[in-house]
Amino acid sequence: MITVEEAKGLLFGAIEKSLPITLPLKDAYGFVLYEDLHSPIDLPLFDQSSMDGYAIANGDLTDNKRFKVIGEIKAGDGKDFHLNQGEAVRIFTGAAVPSSADGIIIQERVERNDDCISLMENFHQGMFIRRKGSQIARGDLALKKGTILNAASIGLLAALGIDKIDVYCKPNVTIIATGDEIVSPGKELSAGEIYESNSYMLNAALQEMRVNVSDIHFVRDEKMLLKERVQDVILKSDVVLITGGISVGKYDFVLEVLNDLGVQTIFYKVAQQPGKPLLAGKINDKWIFALPGNPASSLVCFYEYAYPTIRMISGIENSHLPTETSKLLKGISKKEDRSQFIRAIKTDEGVMPLEGQDSGMLQSFAKANVLIYLSKETRHIKEGDLVEIHILPK
Amino acid sequence: MITVEEAKGLLFGAIEKSLPITLPLKDAYGFVLYEDLHSPIDLPLFDQSSMDGYAIANGDLTDNKRFKVIGEIKAGDGKDFHLNQGEAVRIFTGAAVPSSADGIIIQERVERNDDCISLMENFHQGMFIRRKGSQIARGDLALKKGTILNAASIGLLAALGIDKIDVYCKPNVTIIATGDEIVSPGKELSAGEIYESNSYMLNAALQEMRVNVSDIHFVRDEKMLLKERVQDVILKSDVVLITGGISVGKYDFVLEVLNDLGVQTIFYKVAQQPGKPLLAGKINDKWIFALPGNPASSLVCFYEYAYPTIRMISGIENSHLPTETSKLLKGISKKEDRSQFIRAIKTDEGVMPLEGQDSGMLQSFAKANVLIYLSKETRHIKEGDLVEIHILPK
Repeated sequence: MITVEEAKGLLFGAIEKSLPITLPLKDAYGFVLYEDLHSPIDLPLFDQSSMDGYAIANGDLTDNKRFKVIGEIKAGDGKDFHLNQGEAVRIFTGAAVPSSADGIIIQERVERNDDCISLMENFHQGMFIRRKGSQIARGDLALKKGTILNAASIGLLAALGIDKIDVYCKPNVTIIATGDEIVSPGKELSAGEIYESNSYMLNAALQEMRVNVSDIHFVRDEKMLLKERVQDVILKSDVVLITGGISVGKYDFVLEVLNDLGVQTIFYKVAQQPGKPLLAGKINDKWIFALPGNPASSLVCFYEYAYPTIRMISGIENSHLPTETSKLLKGISKKEDRSQFIRAIKTDEGVMPLEGQDSGMLQSFAKANVLIYLSKETRHIKEGDLVEIHILPK
Repeated sequence: MITVEEAKGLLFGAIEKSLPITLPLKDAYGFVLYEDLHSPIDLPLFDQSSMDGYAIANGDLTDNKRFKVIGEIKAGDGKDFHLNQGEAVRIFTGAAVPSSADGIIIQERVERNDDCISLMENFHQGMFIRRKGSQIARGDLALKKGTILNAASIGLLAALGIDKIDVYCKPNVTIIATGDEIVSPGKELSAGEIYESNSYMLNAALQEMRVNVSDIHFVRDEKMLLKERVQDVILKSDVVLITGGISVGKYDFVLEVLNDLGVQTIFYKVAQQPGKPLLAGKINDKWIFALPGNPASSLVCFYEYAYPTIRMISGIENSHLPTETSKLLKGISKKEDRSQFIRAIKTDEGVMPLEGQDSGMLQSFAKANVLIYLSKETRHIKEGDLVEIHILPK
């Protein structure tokens, strides 16, 4: 059976970033910049007063410290003034500094009587002027290709006058939950039935990623039904997540269906716990993940394989769950035949494995903030040993 | 002037969590659970096979290891079987175990010939049965009040059959950007005008928080216009963010307008850089933040004051930016008269202040992943000293 490292190597080596789309800036939060962004303008666009005060010319200061106020410029005004000897202009924060002025004296450092001001401070060339282009000059690199657009970078793009931006497209994802036993929450159960939870769980995980879930389907364990549905969904989605039906039981049809449809298997079955019956496949640039039906297995496989895939396609460079090492707070023994992902809580002291690691149990997953990763070869790990942890999204 | 610590004390001491709303489970990602959630059912709801195999009764094993297969139960079936001496039932993962069976022999450990199986493994009581209620018993605490609903907890709620859930309501936020100089990105600028960026930036910051932005308004520096707009917006929103117009300039009307409208000032002006001209106010359980017009100041004030407020209202316990200490990678000197927030990058080595700390500069903010916080009293901090950092959202 393939190891976790081999499976990840095969999968992630094959993924390409998506093509760009142009989005309105207001909708671009969280998307990844497709190209280096060079500033189309100088920022600021003109010499700008950074305070409320008075604009004066340097040469004036040889003789006197008294000035006549000949006008006013507030933010947004298009006025200019020529300052003659002994003249000042009242100016406000953000306003364009007159071309003949050399600096701003702030209002707190001035005594004003009617139309005249007296300076209570020495004047320095360029005081309280934000020079044209001093933040970014026209043509300068403002944001690098690959930048994940956060609040500040969106603000910066707006300040540069940009209202549309090229970003990597995010994939459309469809979820198919399979099984004769599953019933939607809120409905009545008959004997032998259980509530369907995988689609709710994966939908929430995709909401966290701000990825569009095109559709959610529920399909019974009938091969022809499943085949039709998967065929249809592949046409309409970039990534398909199927849960259940991927073991070797008599009523597990997912593998057969994917083979019949010509999906190229990248790997099937991984030496890991939980989540051994996992398939990753590809057809025409579309990615298919057949996840185990047990909820905790399904979510581990999602975060370790599907999550990085979707993020890579979306143009994100560091697409895996963030990895760190942490001190184990309680010893663990494991079998040597497979890797293990253990739901755990990391604190400042270290990392504590949670009770309830059965592959059906979500309660421990709801509390966990990390997965401990133990490679296949690992046997006994003592309290105090360092282990690899994968940090789950908040 | 009030200190950062005093301002935060006054503000955060006055905030109450919102009332609950009932949401469909599929829309509840990221919301906070309003009450302890006790399980309405046993999970699993019945004794469930955890593998594909054969169900047998314990007593059978005294005599033989050969069994006749008398039927089949797959997941979702409502069938039961009474197992007589020497009989087995074919069973699949997730299926209800017959009440007369004591355990499951997995299919890999069985030799099958026509209707008969021979066991190749010893049988133990309860093998591969997930007992009714073993994950959560009916009435047990499934999720605590205050839980932020993540993918796993949403999955758990679905598995319990819950399709609607009571969570704390999130506040509706409205943004008002003020100024005669501001023009929307994508339009032509006249002399003295600049592109409006604060509303884009704050809108993105609120998207990150998954908070609904009811509306975005742009208002010129005219007192009556501003008053009408703010009055109208207060009626329709839980939180109002105003940018600009909060200094003491002749055209700064925000303070006057808020006073005229009867907004109770919690604090006005904080001894901090950037972001001194900041006002927090309250009227009828609605919160108003008048943020500085300079983008970087505005965003610092948002993250330090408005962000925790909105999260507290939404029921989140740890509502502030996560705080850590980190080793400073480059010395800093500051004035003693105010606290300082410095945009910086934290790596494994420590924290490095960025170039471009001017209150208008967003480029450094776009790169920053933390704010260094230096309290008012701090003067010189040497390379290698520990400083407080506030971790910015991704």
